[in-house]
Amino acid sequence: MEIYHPAEMLSRDEIAALQCQRLRETVRQARNSRFYRQRLDDAGVSPESIQSLDDLARIPPTAKQDLRDSYPDGMVAVPQERLVRLHASSGTTGAATVIYHTREDIRTWAELMARCMFMAGVRPWDVFQNTSGYGLFTGGLGIHYGAEALGCLTIPSGPGNTRRQLKLIRDFGVTVLHIIPSYALYLGDALAAEGLDPAALSPRIALIGAEPHSEEVRRRIESLLGLKAYNSYGLSEMNGPGVAFECQCQDGMHLWEDAFIAEILDPETGQPVPEGEVGELVMTCLTRTGMPILRYKTRDLTRFVPGLCACGRPHRRIDRIKGRADDMLIIKGVNIYPMQVEQALMALPEVGQNYQIILTHDGRMDQLTVQVELREDFFQEDMRALTGLQKKIAGILRDEILVTPRVELVQANTLPRTEGKAVRVLDKRGDA
Amino acid sequence: MEIYHPAEMLSRDEIAALQCQRLRETVRQARNSRFYRQRLDDAGVSPESIQSLDDLARIPPTAKQDLRDSYPDGMVAVPQERLVRLHASSGTTGAATVIYHTREDIRTWAELMARCMFMAGVRPWDVFQNTSGYGLFTGGLGIHYGAEALGCLTIPSGPGNTRRQLKLIRDFGVTVLHIIPSYALYLGDALAAEGLDPAALSPRIALIGAEPHSEEVRRRIESLLGLKAYNSYGLSEMNGPGVAFECQCQDGMHLWEDAFIAEILDPETGQPVPEGEVGELVMTCLTRTGMPILRYKTRDLTRFVPGLCACGRPHRRIDRIKGRADDMLIIKGVNIYPMQVEQALMALPEVGQNYQIILTHDGRMDQLTVQVELREDFFQEDMRALTGLQKKIAGILRDEILVTPRVELVQANTLPRTEGKAVRVLDKRGDA
Ligand SMILES: [Zn+2]
Ligand SMILES: [Zn+2]
Repeated sequence: MEIYHPAEMLSRDEIAALQCQRLRETVRQARNSRFYRQRLDDAGVSPESIQSLDDLARIPPTAKQDLRDSYPDGMVAVPQERLVRLHASSGTTGAATVIYHTREDIRTWAELMARCMFMAGVRPWDVFQNTSGYGLFTGGLGIHYGAEALGCLTIPSGPGNTRRQLKLIRDFGVTVLHIIPSYALYLGDALAAEGLDPAALSPRIALIGAEPHSEEVRRRIESLLGLKAYNSYGLSEMNGPGVAFECQCQDGMHLWEDAFIAEILDPETGQPVPEGEVGELVMTCLTRTGMPILRYKTRDLTRFVPGLCACGRPHRRIDRIKGRADDMLIIKGVNIYPMQVEQALMALPEVGQNYQIILTHDGRMDQLTVQVELREDFFQEDMRALTGLQKKIAGILRDEILVTPRVELVQANTLPRTEGKAVRVLDKRGDA
Repeated sequence: MEIYHPAEMLSRDEIAALQCQRLRETVRQARNSRFYRQRLDDAGVSPESIQSLDDLARIPPTAKQDLRDSYPDGMVAVPQERLVRLHASSGTTGAATVIYHTREDIRTWAELMARCMFMAGVRPWDVFQNTSGYGLFTGGLGIHYGAEALGCLTIPSGPGNTRRQLKLIRDFGVTVLHIIPSYALYLGDALAAEGLDPAALSPRIALIGAEPHSEEVRRRIESLLGLKAYNSYGLSEMNGPGVAFECQCQDGMHLWEDAFIAEILDPETGQPVPEGEVGELVMTCLTRTGMPILRYKTRDLTRFVPGLCACGRPHRRIDRIKGRADDMLIIKGVNIYPMQVEQALMALPEVGQNYQIILTHDGRMDQLTVQVELREDFFQEDMRALTGLQKKIAGILRDEILVTPRVELVQANTLPRTEGKAVRVLDKRGDA
């Protein structure tokens, strides 16, 4: 097996020793910011008091709200002249959060990203098309710098304009795509609509991320585009893309433990969940100088994949994101994650690329409606067959989520689509 | 005077010697591409035959059409695995042109760009907001890499969303903006509309380029935004931004002659125009490895500013772009450049930020109409005053362009505006 960086093969003991040493350095660095100086003083955490990884639990977690409260620069840990980059979430409201990077942070991030891409099989001679939006959003520039560090010929196409995307893919023999799952499905349909054979297209790898999605969606992307799709995980608070990535085993995402400490905690109690169980991912970055963040509550739900990966890299793997702690829907008193619905639907061959979960309240109780696009050929079926299918889907969903939904079958391409992120849930229960 | 790179102070003799040596190397490198191997063989130009800068004239010029004809990779001069970046013009039609860069090309370009910004007064401790579009267009990534090389805190805001741009400027104490002239005027009006005092805003420098504009527009931008505005020149065929830039004298743009050879030629005959006269800028890049281009006919009209700049940098200056050779309008047999109209209009205090040149043909002859937005307060004037103003503008324009236009005065903010490039000319003479 080829590796990009020796750190990929550190043993568990070496990882633990490095994490402890870097945690101490990161605590020291974080204390240069107004926010962490106060927070760590209050908790009695000094760099010297970090003696083992058990001391991590003494550091209070950092919440999204802490980032908002310290806007714009309460967490900055270096003099301003050392900063070279600012990234921000949406930014139109006062609730924006921003992350600052030094030149070294940008380099470290690019190297982590390059390591991820290499692990998924990307090589310097690949032609790489980046359909992420560039700018304040980290997906575009983050992956771009990684591809450049790796040495790919990088085409910064940005999102949208599907005709142009296809032209670029064909004219330049693109071999690797970075694409969000819902747009990959859209692109696959566009290929089919133009009568193009996916097997004849040059891309052999798609890097997919930024949207939680099910294994079924990954398999669909692979078959629609005729390539291998690898899951990516990242969040702007931990740089952006480049945090965890699938190796060629496609069995969970290796999280780079020389650069991050990951914990999986019960979102309510803040205590570790038993090994292998689902909880909230809490992340500490170990290499950032401009704006270190300690024990960040990501709100993303996942679990550690038990055991050692077949590829041999000792870095632990996280499972695909099951949803966000904030995404959980409570319907008729039952906890439901949209990803459960997607997983059940996408396993059915009759189901097309799009669906929507609609919640209403009829004055007495919650009502769950699931609108499901059918594939063109299945929609041609007679009414009796459709009614049968409707019942079948309702039954499968009930078994999965323990609530019986109203199922509406609709024609392909009739639900609202987007070239950006898909809107999968409409909660209208608050509406008059 | 502080300089960023010793090359800024090369003497004319040193520049000439370096140009000759690099031209020879560039000819050698270009011959690795299918296109130039053929083109240079046909012209009998070998690297060894380049003995002095006079030999430049033996190299046939390269036209935009040559780039189109060699699409997608006929001008690539290195093995594909050495390429790390592709940029393209519009790209939706077969007429797209693409430029490839190696890792060294990207570094050289970033350093040239950083040198430009430093010359305009930008320093590592500045906070830099880049409102250019990122992606295949060179303005975004080109300036971004330069700002990062220089060490500015770079905010990759991208274009549009004026409310967010203003919020970023204020929240992060932005000191330098990169902005196209028409959007700078738009932003200035947005400031005024919100009752914000430009003098109270933090930006002290705007880098403006990508659109030909008049000195009057620059002065307006400076007063509307309360800062110094510096002109920038670049084109994707010569990397993008970073080719020529104003120093703090604001008296023409220094063109980096260690990296480029510039000629100003008669667009018809291809012969040099007399020193100081306007002609077509023809450019040779001296440092590019991935895709060198020799004697590229830019279609941009300018002249060399005579004499030595007060700043002392020996690199020659080009004057602001007078328009494009293709922009020339022939109206009633007279040659007119839209920039002449802009210059005349923007010198009048009554005139607002926007105007439009409309050409029609009434079946017998060409008709020139100029629609002019007035400033709010002037539009309040009585009809007689307005009629007087209309006549005054028509007279001023006739003196400038030798054709008497129909002048229509309109209210501020009624002409079509855009957050992107302004559309200044509507030629409807071909319409039925
Ligand atoms: Zn693995
Ligand atoms: Zn000067």
